[in-house]
Amino acid sequence: MVITFLTDFGLQDDFVGTCHGVIARIVPEARVIDVTHGIRPGHVLQGAIVLANTLAYMPAGVHLAVVDPGVGGGRRPLALRDGEGRLYVGPDNGLLLPAADRFGGVAAAHELANAYYSLQPVSRTFHGRDLFSPAAAYLAAGVALEELGPPVDPDELVRVDIPQPEVGQNRIRAVALVVDRFGNVALNLRRADLEHMELGPGSRVEVASHGERFYAVFARTFDDAARGSLIFYEDSYGSLALAVSRGSAAELLRLEEGGEIVLDLAER
Amino acid sequence: MVITFLTDFGLQDDFVGTCHGVIARIVPEARVIDVTHGIRPGHVLQGAIVLANTLAYMPAGVHLAVVDPGVGGGRRPLALRDGEGRLYVGPDNGLLLPAADRFGGVAAAHELANAYYSLQPVSRTFHGRDLFSPAAAYLAAGVALEELGPPVDPDELVRVDIPQPEVGQNRIRAVALVVDRFGNVALNLRRADLEHMELGPGSRVEVASHGERFYAVFARTFDDAARGSLIFYEDSYGSLALAVSRGSAAELLRLEEGGEIVLDLAER
Amino acid sequence: MVITFLTDFGLQDDFVGTCHGVIARIVPEARVIDVTHGIRPGHVLQGAIVLANTLAYMPAGVHLAVVDPGVGGGRRPLALRDGEGRLYVGPDNGLLLPAADRFGGVAAAHELANAYYSLQPVSRTFHGRDLFSPAAAYLAAGVALEELGPPVDPDELVRVDIPQPEVGQNRIRAVALVVDRFGNVALNLRRADLEHMELGPGSRVEVASHGERFYAVFARTFDDAARGSLIFYEDSYGSLALAVSRGSAAELLRLEEGGEIVLDLAER
Repeated sequence: MVITFLTDFGLQDDFVGTCHGVIARIVPEARVIDVTHGIRPGHVLQGAIVLANTLAYMPAGVHLAVVDPGVGGGRRPLALRDGEGRLYVGPDNGLLLPAADRFGGVAAAHELANAYYSLQPVSRTFHGRDLFSPAAAYLAAGVALEELGPPVDPDELVRVDIPQPEVGQNRIRAVALVVDRFGNVALNLRRADLEHMELGPGSRVEVASHGERFYAVFARTFDDAARGSLIFYEDSYGSLALAVSRGSAAELLRLEEGGEIVLDLAER
Repeated sequence: MVITFLTDFGLQDDFVGTCHGVIARIVPEARVIDVTHGIRPGHVLQGAIVLANTLAYMPAGVHLAVVDPGVGGGRRPLALRDGEGRLYVGPDNGLLLPAADRFGGVAAAHELANAYYSLQPVSRTFHGRDLFSPAAAYLAAGVALEELGPPVDPDELVRVDIPQPEVGQNRIRAVALVVDRFGNVALNLRRADLEHMELGPGSRVEVASHGERFYAVFARTFDDAARGSLIFYEDSYGSLALAVSRGSAAELLRLEEGGEIVLDLAER
Repeated sequence: MVITFLTDFGLQDDFVGTCHGVIARIVPEARVIDVTHGIRPGHVLQGAIVLANTLAYMPAGVHLAVVDPGVGGGRRPLALRDGEGRLYVGPDNGLLLPAADRFGGVAAAHELANAYYSLQPVSRTFHGRDLFSPAAAYLAAGVALEELGPPVDPDELVRVDIPQPEVGQNRIRAVALVVDRFGNVALNLRRADLEHMELGPGSRVEVASHGERFYAVFARTFDDAARGSLIFYEDSYGSLALAVSRGSAAELLRLEEGGEIVLDLAER
């Protein structure tokens, strides 16, 4: 059985390694695939998007995700099953739902309340180690979802708001959802949002960020544009995105996750 | 057999990956769990504390640890067995002992002197690859500890000094032992050190750092305090620690590992 | 079967984890060893050198490497076999050849053209996920190299230029090839290049960088010099290198990869 593992723990500390140890003690034969531990600390929305984007590329199994700024507070710890049988473990803060929604929605949800399937005592600040990793490990070992605790009504689970773009005739107000290592900026915008516009290879797009204006060319890949020029393209997860060929769009546009830009396609 | 692996190698370079390769060539069936490779370069004390803190969460096996600023110099390369049968491999600079002390102390120590169980020639600057990883791999493959080299008297092993807090009636001078990705600062202080003080949820603590004064509230978890406020709490490894709810205590207090603070609990 | 994996993807994003998922879906029983994902973005030369340096420490298998600034453009995706039977997968930009050259050269090269062994549709910007990882996985599963696509003449593969040092009687102009986490700087210089010089432990070397001059001592390891002093030494991969004992040579000399220095051994 495979456990996939996504967090905002980073790799500087022992958090991820300790969770691997906890899992290996419970279910030595499970394989753990680290999706990423580089979610920005506490950014539940980014974690939810990355989990949803990547899940189709993972073997079906137990999908453990922890981005949990409310650890130790009132939020519920959860285990879910989606419509296709995948299992999820994580906090009830919206992190898991966009992924489950892509695979048939939440078929069953249970609160992690059975102390037998956690490390005792459960610390107040490291539920990844004491609560979520053991739950994922026991699920991978074949324990039934229902064993972990009482059912929760799927309609009562907390959801994250995914910001929606404002799409006008030729002007779009969009938000940076994910900025990657290469400085590429994925927007909350998909090809379908632009269907009414005549956008094709070579189209020019005006991009306004922090009051400054830039010109981007619509391109299929980084190499379609001159080195250093800004391109607008569909990224590998189907999001429209901005990149600088062999440079950083995030730096050029001074954009972080959550930052807003305006795209103008008027000029043709 | 599991090998756990902790270093200050970082993940930017090939050091960790190369050691994984060396181990896989010798004992393909061993599983390696990376505890962390983010120990600050050369900080033996931090490495020793993290190894000791995390070991109880790892499957018993061979525990390989390399934080080794004296590589290639006079310090001895070691393999140890603790009182409960766990095996350790690493430099004789104190890194391994706080962990072994928690599991019955050092029952046997041997110097890595048998050239048969190293890569030849052993480089002067990468004993992790040439000496320590092969030794750990051969131990995981079943080679006896005694085979690796001559015994060393456990009493002659190098020890690290763990700085002790100065605990007065209401004033404590403490040192930052570990600063994590979230900016949480674990101190050289445990709940037992404060037993004579009346410290409970909601108690206020004055924290002096770099001549500036801050107020912290004693809390159980991050969410018990308002966003941005400083809290004083018991962390998941039992250390007393400082955090800023959804912020960074290390930044607020300008604290790095080794930095000193004064806590004042007078005001009640 | 082992797959080794080297990229410039970093570990902040999901790129590496997603490739692990893709591989695990195709060949669940394969083991993936991450050599490093810290190659500087787009630095094909650095990737080629690290791959070549580390390969001898890896189990023979499928060696997947992706440093691919030209992704989605005209460059060919490749699979190779070297003279000793190792398999390689990566872009045709020179990344794979220095490694293959050390193991008997390229015995066979094939373009990744068979759509059956890729994820469909192949994105324009993430061939690591859609093209290279599946190819490596199918090779690890036993698919023949020839199945992946038409043969390519090994003499027509793209090669990287490895900068050569200018070696005079007592003066050498060299280039920084790899800078590691510890600030150690590996030069494009090996012991054999200096055979005509009388260089031994304790020899002093003048190092000029950015117009400033420094003195280094030739040493065997970091501990042979006083803390903070600059040393010139043979590193664990056989490159001559500069380091500062318990400090950073890269910082002292303000050197990045590709930076040039002049070494003067005149003074004896």
